[in-house]
Order: sequence, then structure tokens, then C-alpha cells
Amino acid sequence: MELKKGLEDIAIKETEITYIDGNLGRLYYRGYSIFDLAEFSNFEETAYLIWFGKLPNSRELKDLKEKLAEERNLPEYVVQFIKNVRKDANPMDVLRTAISMLGIEDESNKEELWEKAVKITSKIPTIISFFVRTRKNLDIIEPDSSLSHAENFLYMLKGEKPSNLESKVMDVSLLLHMDHEMNASTFACLVVASTLSDIYSSVVAGVSALKGPLHGGANSEALKQFMEIGNKDNVEEYIMKKLESGHRIMGFGHRIYKTYDPRAKILKEYAKMITKEKGLYNLYEVAEKVDEIGSRILGKKGIYPNVDFYAGLVFYSLGFEPDLFPTVFASSRIVGWTAHIMEYLKDNKLIRPKAIYKGEIGRKYIGIQERE
Amino acid sequence: MELKKGLEDIAIKETEITYIDGNLGRLYYRGYSIFDLAEFSNFEETAYLIWFGKLPNSRELKDLKEKLAEERNLPEYVVQFIKNVRKDANPMDVLRTAISMLGIEDESNKEELWEKAVKITSKIPTIISFFVRTRKNLDIIEPDSSLSHAENFLYMLKGEKPSNLESKVMDVSLLLHMDHEMNASTFACLVVASTLSDIYSSVVAGVSALKGPLHGGANSEALKQFMEIGNKDNVEEYIMKKLESGHRIMGFGHRIYKTYDPRAKILKEYAKMITKEKGLYNLYEVAEKVDEIGSRILGKKGIYPNVDFYAGLVFYSLGFEPDLFPTVFASSRIVGWTAHIMEYLKDNKLIRPKAIYKGEIGRKYIGIQERE
Ligand SMILES: CC(C)(COP(=O)(O)OP(=O)(O)OC[C@H]1O[C@@H](n2cnc3c(N)ncnc32)[C@H](O)[C@@H]1OP(=O)(O)O)[C@@H](O)C(=O)NCCC(=O)NCCS
Ligand SMILES: CC(C)(COP(=O)(O)OP(=O)(O)OC[C@H]1O[C@@H](n2cnc3c(N)ncnc32)[C@H](O)[C@@H]1OP(=O)(O)O)[C@@H](O)C(=O)NCCC(=O)NCCS
Repeated sequence: MELKKGLEDIAIKETEITYIDGNLGRLYYRGYSIFDLAEFSNFEETAYLIWFGKLPNSRELKDLKEKLAEERNLPEYVVQFIKNVRKDANPMDVLRTAISMLGIEDESNKEELWEKAVKITSKIPTIISFFVRTRKNLDIIEPDSSLSHAENFLYMLKGEKPSNLESKVMDVSLLLHMDHEMNASTFACLVVASTLSDIYSSVVAGVSALKGPLHGGANSEALKQFMEIGNKDNVEEYIMKKLESGHRIMGFGHRIYKTYDPRAKILKEYAKMITKEKGLYNLYEVAEKVDEIGSRILGKKGIYPNVDFYAGLVFYSLGFEPDLFPTVFASSRIVGWTAHIMEYLKDNKLIRPKAIYKGEIGRKYIGIQERE
Repeated sequence: MELKKGLEDIAIKETEITYIDGNLGRLYYRGYSIFDLAEFSNFEETAYLIWFGKLPNSRELKDLKEKLAEERNLPEYVVQFIKNVRKDANPMDVLRTAISMLGIEDESNKEELWEKAVKITSKIPTIISFFVRTRKNLDIIEPDSSLSHAENFLYMLKGEKPSNLESKVMDVSLLLHMDHEMNASTFACLVVASTLSDIYSSVVAGVSALKGPLHGGANSEALKQFMEIGNKDNVEEYIMKKLESGHRIMGFGHRIYKTYDPRAKILKEYAKMITKEKGLYNLYEVAEKVDEIGSRILGKKGIYPNVDFYAGLVFYSLGFEPDLFPTVFASSRIVGWTAHIMEYLKDNKLIRPKAIYKGEIGRKYIGIQERE
């Protein structure tokens, strides 16, 4: 039996959802380039594409938008939970618990999987925003069904309608995080789904995995690094010191991309614009310099900025505190999670690997008095 | 890249916890035969063995027993959640949510992993019993720290101290379900743990996976089958009809055991005793007959009763309704889950498989007006 610890070169399924070309730095959702989608599409349309495999026509898009807008409310007992949870709770723990609670309510509901996927997707921004408002002792803001998914998220967070730039930046950021093939959280969803457990249980496992610092946490590390550097003139020295002492530059490097991550390329432009609007341009300048010097040094080894490099800066500029970044990530990746669950269940097989036993066999049981 | 859909022949790690010999029908925890442990050991001692790799001496066992007994209480907000949740909730959804809530509280607690494992193990029976009592409109019974883990579980469930036989049967049943190498729920725990997420998140993923009917649900199916048959004289005809029509006998067959599951062998004896005490001996007789005839017919193909065959009958005799069986399973498997998490984290590697892309690449984005 083969030992494959991280399952690095094992394919768990065939997929028609996402393709990553790590050498050319290309990412495709359902065959469409991420560059086109980021420029021309939006959250709702791309979610439709990922779930259903084709771009929607006007009626299909209208239906999905309406459904996404209608489902934003939370049952009262989930609202109460969020209002009463300790203010210093980890936001990912709150999200995990709230989705688990939604699953209780929806257990006997026989809707199709995609309808449940839409519901969960609609409700995640409400969970996050309600928690953020409550922990700041502010009134919660009810969702506004006249706003898009991205706009409404920012509106519920801050209580005012976002600017056009904020809306676009939020929308693109979510779109860029929506799916990334078989990452750890998506795989956690599939392991659970493969037992024929329900979709809420599967998604709860996804949130649980995304919480880990090796997965959903690198974006805040990257941001902290820019804050620590403080000024673009300090970048060169900082990087040299880091690398010489054997440390890594956060937001650089990727298992699959051996060139510039296309998502980072897109986010960079938006990070530039939004930091300008928000008076955070000095942080952007630091980031740009880290990008430039880091790529010059590490690029020879195929190590370039990844999506997390600029994502933290963007989320922060949009008003999210760093501990919320993984929840924002989850609010987008939910589309990929549920799409992969649906794809896997079309031809399900229980995911049940083995372990190789290395211990003793046949130890003799002795009475407790005779033990050391 | 190899496609390995169910990961059937892939070893995800080396282990010193559990060894299954599927040809001889042997199961070892830390090298000790399950037959010895079922006869001479008990829940607390075997939990110690699985977590720490050796049988405890008197002091070590006393310490663990005390810790397990002390930690049974739930924080008030979890009690409130259980009291207010809908009475028709799926018990596994309640368990998943309650453990997720415990994780919120324990997030900033820097105890060692084994201490958190003990805590969660202590609290699961309380969560289940409180929910069962509440949904029957009965007062909850506070845990009694003078009772063993198994006794206290039955006490909180029914409000009276269990008989010696009930205590022994409960204790052995839990002991037999404690670990079983790399099953789907244990693997779900590891996928989450491998991102360096917390132990509550990992366990929540385990509960989520165990909920699936392909994993934690077969014991109630087996019981339903005995109830449907009703009388031992109907067994032969029932089995013939089932098999001729291409159906399976529930509680028979196993991916690894090609002979009688040692756990079924042990449980059979206890099922006989406890059904007699509880006036359910007719169900036992049906089961025994299904076992006999089923093994005669299916044994040639290496298909024999598995642990679930008698487990449902035993849990039912102890007073658990069928929808609770997976939660009882979880109350025991928590020991294996947490032991595997701790073992994996000693030499962690992110579990991140791949997928093989089979879709189109380079589709051209077209405006919404031009779409079909
Ligand atoms: C993402 C990541 C885990 C991928 O790693 P991987 O494919 O498993 O590659 P390894 O960790 O084995 O690294 C390979 C080499 O590149 C170096 N390297 C990788 N990322 C680096 C970084 N961010 N800064 C400096 N060096 C880096 C390693 O030190 C190693 O060098 P060596 O061969 O001289 O020892 C890794 O690049 C990393 O830790 N990045 C920083 C954290 C981060 O941004 N994570 C976000 C992921 S989306
Ligand atoms: C547990 C189980 C999934 C293991 O299955 P597996 O190793 O993947 O083997 P397969 O499902 O491929 O079955 C192999 C053959 O045995 C037969 N078989 C397996 N379990 C059987 C059962 N319980 N009753 C009748 N026939 C059975 C299958 O029909 C198949 O026959 P075929 O080769 O003539 O088509 C399977 O035995 C089963 O479904 N059992 C019933 C449910 C159950 O008790 N689950 C508890 C698991 S602990």
C-alpha cells in the first residue's frame, strides 16, 4: 500500500469546474478565463456559471439574483445566537456554528441541492455582518434586497451604500476567490458529502478547514507584514533580513502556480485604486515594492505573489478587520464548495483511505496492579 | 496523475493506534486484542490506552477518571441552545452545533490537545442526554460524577442508575466503537486538522461525516430489518426474497473484514443478555437467525455480520431511540478521532489532493444579450 501523506499527486475526482495552468499563470472557471470574468462578469453571474456550467441568459440571471437577494435573512434563533455570542469570538467559529444551526432548520426540507447552496451563499454575509456590528455595539443592518450580493455585504457591514469603486472591488474580490480546484476546504466538504451526509454538514467541514492558518489565513499575514514594514523605503532591508534568516515572504509562492498568480495580477490594480480612495496608499506602495523586490529575488525559483498577497490589503481597505478575512474568503468559496459537492454526488464513492500500522501487535493485557 | 476516487488503496498516514486483521477477524487497539480489552478493560482505561499508547497505572487511571467526570457539565449557553432547539431536530445536527459552540468558548484556551480531547469526550453524553430529555418534555438530569462514563450516560438518559448488566453492556459497546483505523469520519477530522485549524473544528467535521448513512447509519437499518421480520420463523423467507431481489442484508459485509467482525462476535453475547433483561428477546432471536442463515449463504463470499449488526439491538435495549444511534457511536469514536488528530499533528502535512480537468478551456465570454 502506498503512503501518500498530503495526497499531493493524487486526483480525487474528475472535474469540469476549474482549471489552473500553473506554468502560464492562467485560471479558468468552466473554461472561461478569470481575466474575462473579472472584467466583464460579476458575483451573481459567475456563481451561476460555476454552479450550472454555463453563463446565464437574462431570465436565468434575474431568477438567481432574486433568489440570492430573497434568502439573505436569518431565522430569529440564529440572530439571537449571533447577538449573544461573546464579542471576542473567532469569526470563523461563529460562522461555523451559525451554518450548523441553519442545517438544523433545513434538515427536513427536500429542496434540491443547488437551492440549498443558494440559500447558504445568501446568508453568509448576513451572519458575518451581524456579528461585526454586534461586537462593535452597533445596531445590525437588515439586508437590502435592491442591492447586489457584493454591495449588500458592504452595506450591512457599514450601514451606508458603498461607492461604485467599493462595489466593484468587493465584487471582483469575491469572484476571484470563488473556486480553486481541490483545495483542503473543498476536499473536506467532499469527504463529508461522500458519506451521503447533508450539504450543511459538508459546508461546516469546509468552514472548519478554511479556518486553518495553512489555508485561509495567509492574507492577514501578508497585510501584517506591510504594516510592520510601514514605509516603502524599508522594504529592501526587510526582505533581505527575512530571507537571510530563513523566513518566508507571506503572500508569495504556490503549490501550483510557478509564475504570477493571475488573481494577484487582477487584485493588484484594484488594490491600487481602493487604497488611494481610502487613504491607505502608503500600504499599497509598500506592497508594490515587496512585490517588485520579492519577485526579482524569488522569481528565479518560480515564487511570485499569490492571491493572498493583495487580498488582505483589499479586504482591509473595504472595511474588514483582519480576523474577518477568512470569513470573507468563505463567503465566496461557498460557491466552489457547493459546486464540487454537487459534481461529486453525481457519481459518489465513499472517501475512505487507509493507514499503515507501525505499532506492536499482540501485547499481553496485564492487571492494573502489575503496571509501572 | 492517478485518479483514486474513494482513496481505497491509499494510506494517508502511518499509525500506532489501531490494527485490523481482516482475514483472521482480529482488531487491536495499541497492540492489545479487542477480545482482551472487552473482557478486562473499560471505557476510561481503553480511552487512556488509545490516547497515550499504554495502559494506565492506578494513579494515571484515577486522574483520567476524575478529569472525565469533572468535565461533564455544559456552559449555560449550550444548555439553553439544547433546551430551545426544535424537538424534531436530527440529533447529529444538535451534536454538531453544540460541539461547534463549545469551540467558541474554548478558542482562546491554551490547554494541550489531549485535555481538550478529554473535555469534548466528557461532554458529548451530556449534550445527547439533555436533548433526549428535553424533546420528551422531561427534566434534564445533571451528570453524577460518582458514576463511570458509561453509567452516567445511561443515568442522564433515563434518570435512574443502570443495572450492573446495563452498565457493562454500555461500557463494552462504547469500547468496541472507539476506533477503527482510517474511516471516513476520522479522515474528515484529519483533513481539517492538517490546515492547523483547531480541534473543535476537526471534531465537528468528524460528526458531520459520521452523520452520513453510508457511515454511522447502518446500525439502525439493521434493527429496522429485525423489527420488520418480527418473528424468527419469517427469517429464511425474508432473506431469500431480499437477496433474490438484489438487496443487501443490513449489518453484513465489510471493506476490510472477510470473516466474522470480532466486534460483532462480542456484541452478540451482550445482545443476548440485555434483550432478555429488557423483554426484547424475540428481536434477538430474529437477529440470531439472520446471522446464522445470512452467514451460511453469504459467508462463501466473505460476507459476515459487522459491528452494526448487533449494535442497534444493543443500543435500543439500553433505551436509545434509533435516531440516536449515530450520536452514541460519536460519543465513543471521539476517542479515536482525537487520538488520530494528535498523532497526525506530530508530523503534519496539509492534505490537498488534486482533480483532473475534463472540461473545455478557453471559452469565449459573450454578452448576456447574445446568450441562448
Ligand atoms: C504556499 C506554499 C506553502 C507552497 O509551498 P510548496 O509548493 O509546498 O513549496 P515549499 O514550501 O516546499 O517551498 C519550496 C521552496 O521555495 C521556498 N519558498 C516557498 N515560498 C516562499 C516564500 N513565500 N518566501 C520565501 N521562500 C519561499 C521554500 O523556502 C523552499 O525553498 P528551498 O527549496 O530552498 O528549501 C509556500 O509558498 C508558502 O509557505 N508561502 C507563504 C505563505 C503563503 O503565502 N500562503 C498562501 C498560499 S495561497
Ligand atoms: C459494508 C459494505 C459497503 C462493504 O462493501 P464493499 O467492500 O465495498 O463490497 P461491495 O459493496 O462491492 O460488495 C461486494 C459483493 O458482496 C455483496 N454484498 C456485500 N454486502 C452485502 C450484504 N450486506 N448483503 C448481501 N450482499 C452483499 C455485493 O452485492 C457484491 O456482490 P457481487 O460481487 O455479486 O456484486 C457492504 O458490505 C454493504 O453495503 N453492507 C451492508 C450495509 C452495512 O452493513 N454497512 C455497515 C458497514 S460497517
